[in-house]
Amino acid sequence: MTKRRVYVDNAATTPVHPQVMKEMLPYFTQYYGNPSSIHSFGRQAKHAMDKARERVAAALGAATDEVFFTGSGTEADNWAVKGVAFANKGRGNHIITTKIEHHALLHTCQYLEKHGFEVTYLDVDEYGRISLKQLNEAIKDSTILISIMFANNEIGTIQPVGEIARIAKEKGIYFHTDAVQAMGNVKIDVKEIGVDLLSISAHKIMGPKGIGVLYIRKGIRIDNLVHGGAQERRRRSGTENVAAVVGMGKAAQLAAENLEQHTKRMTSLRDRLIDGIIERIPHVKLNGHPTERLANNVNFSFEFVEGEALLLSLDMAGIAASSGSACTSGSLDPSHVLLAIGLSHETAHGSLRMTLGEANTEEDIDYILEQLPPIANRLRELSPLFKQCEGGKVSV
Amino acid sequence: MTKRRVYVDNAATTPVHPQVMKEMLPYFTQYYGNPSSIHSFGRQAKHAMDKARERVAAALGAATDEVFFTGSGTEADNWAVKGVAFANKGRGNHIITTKIEHHALLHTCQYLEKHGFEVTYLDVDEYGRISLKQLNEAIKDSTILISIMFANNEIGTIQPVGEIARIAKEKGIYFHTDAVQAMGNVKIDVKEIGVDLLSISAHKIMGPKGIGVLYIRKGIRIDNLVHGGAQERRRRSGTENVAAVVGMGKAAQLAAENLEQHTKRMTSLRDRLIDGIIERIPHVKLNGHPTERLANNVNFSFEFVEGEALLLSLDMAGIAASSGSACTSGSLDPSHVLLAIGLSHETAHGSLRMTLGEANTEEDIDYILEQLPPIANRLRELSPLFKQCEGGKVSV
Repeated sequence: MTKRRVYVDNAATTPVHPQVMKEMLPYFTQYYGNPSSIHSFGRQAKHAMDKARERVAAALGAATDEVFFTGSGTEADNWAVKGVAFANKGRGNHIITTKIEHHALLHTCQYLEKHGFEVTYLDVDEYGRISLKQLNEAIKDSTILISIMFANNEIGTIQPVGEIARIAKEKGIYFHTDAVQAMGNVKIDVKEIGVDLLSISAHKIMGPKGIGVLYIRKGIRIDNLVHGGAQERRRRSGTENVAAVVGMGKAAQLAAENLEQHTKRMTSLRDRLIDGIIERIPHVKLNGHPTERLANNVNFSFEFVEGEALLLSLDMAGIAASSGSACTSGSLDPSHVLLAIGLSHETAHGSLRMTLGEANTEEDIDYILEQLPPIANRLRELSPLFKQCEGGKVSV
Repeated sequence: MTKRRVYVDNAATTPVHPQVMKEMLPYFTQYYGNPSSIHSFGRQAKHAMDKARERVAAALGAATDEVFFTGSGTEADNWAVKGVAFANKGRGNHIITTKIEHHALLHTCQYLEKHGFEVTYLDVDEYGRISLKQLNEAIKDSTILISIMFANNEIGTIQPVGEIARIAKEKGIYFHTDAVQAMGNVKIDVKEIGVDLLSISAHKIMGPKGIGVLYIRKGIRIDNLVHGGAQERRRRSGTENVAAVVGMGKAAQLAAENLEQHTKRMTSLRDRLIDGIIERIPHVKLNGHPTERLANNVNFSFEFVEGEALLLSLDMAGIAASSGSACTSGSLDPSHVLLAIGLSHETAHGSLRMTLGEANTEEDIDYILEQLPPIANRLRELSPLFKQCEGGKVSV
């Protein structure tokens, strides 16, 4: 019997969509020119880059000359924050972000703190939402940048980015948002939001790994992060990763075109999984906002369960899930996001993220709902605290 | 009749080798896990990363934990120079490089000059070689880094990297070399050379675009360039580009394994092309060192010929060549490398680079030698200076 394999770690990464793969393939071995070369091989590559840029621009509601390809979403985040910080330090040295950003943001901000910048890390409520009042109060004369993620990678909570953009604009402060997890799971229109800089990554939307985009609104003052040749209108150097750029273009196009249908289906699967878990397993807590959350995100804390043990048992059953951000695996520290929404260290350690994707079906959900309860139960039986609780001594 | 197409711009980029492509392919759609995930999908990807890192390490003579994957050779150069500069500014602020580096180096150094660093740009001789005496004289107490390219991307001249490494070591200064063009065309062993940091790029050696490597010798003090997750032993963040890493691994393995046979064949083709041009076309000058040059590099100046016109005419004949670095195309400035070896603006403008690759044959060389002379001749007939010269008034 072949074991069923259910991949519900789509926030970590996704498979490349067959249509994306098909468009990318010729650019490895056939149309392999360097887009900066003026001969026919180069022009073919340049043409492919132009088309991909148009597709990304259309997907985001941006102009083509506001789309800059990078080597990853992380690089896009680094570039946005460091680039704006260093280019605008004459105006001020204060940056506002949140406690629940991706490490691409947080570690970049910590680096800037070592180089003379001051950073305010906003709190979030129990659902992971920032307070616009606190944001307003945090703004100083020296504030040059607000960077707040569109949607959280662990708990899926969506921030009020339109309102944040309005506040930033009123005060003449740049607003960057990390939309790496939001892309494909919620509508993004940079002009409608009024955002100045926005990061996305292809491999979260069935595109290839190793390619991101930074949207930079026309007129933004920003330093380069990677210096060298004249690529990306002299703003991001390095030979263009043509195949990946083509893949990003197609993936962005598909994400935008299929958004409504995709999110409808994901929401239905998500809610089936959330309801099923709550129904079948006691002492669980849904992390993240009940409604303002990504269509594909499920995050639960299981009291009296150790998260890594849960993951490994699920993996044995063919279910690929996560205890948080893949980027922090290997660390024994509990998730900074779960701590920020008020979970204890113990509860944070017993958390499970399942993020759905295009390939998932109702059968996958039912399989998880069949496998997960006995696994959680078995692990709980190893916990002395659980026995006390079941004996009526602890309430959750 | 199908027009013959001869691609001799392999220093700009190369096609992906079929064996490289074959190994990469499964990692887009089948083994698509995030290497940082602990489930089976993640472990598959992690295993592939480990194997690729071993191959790159073996190809360079490095240890596996000295190999760091980046998004490009340009990023590797940026990281090496900025990372060492910022991490060691307590020891000094002086960097030594050359006037003929790739822009990834030069523009990075110019950026550092704006941030309190002092940079010495060494001259080169008529063949593009630095003087070790001048290097020694340029060293100050405040010198923290020497960055000198292994081989030049335009004229193919190879620098005495072993001697440079010895001088740097004696004085306790870090030595970085940009080996992007050298890799695959000359033997590289980091321990034998004694270099501290070395950059390579996959797409110059029949690997994919969008992936580079920075070799960092154990114990080197270096800041991160891209902050975020814990990837690459916390030194270079961003989800690992697994397929490209696999491609880099295979490409590096092939480059090292085939080095002797490849360079022998390239040298033979190169010399056939050089000799043929000198024989057939008057008023030409070979740029770069006659013997200390890359096996695949041919660079000529054609007096009384405009380089762009030459390229376009060759392109019409199906020959893809270059007037210099692809990264600076679009610029009307003559090559900084050709100016540094003493060419006039006019002569530098009339230069042609042809860089050979695995796919090239003797028939390709003969086709170039058949097409190039009448093209050069036709373009020269448009030049009033040439007519004067042919009338005996100018000597070249």
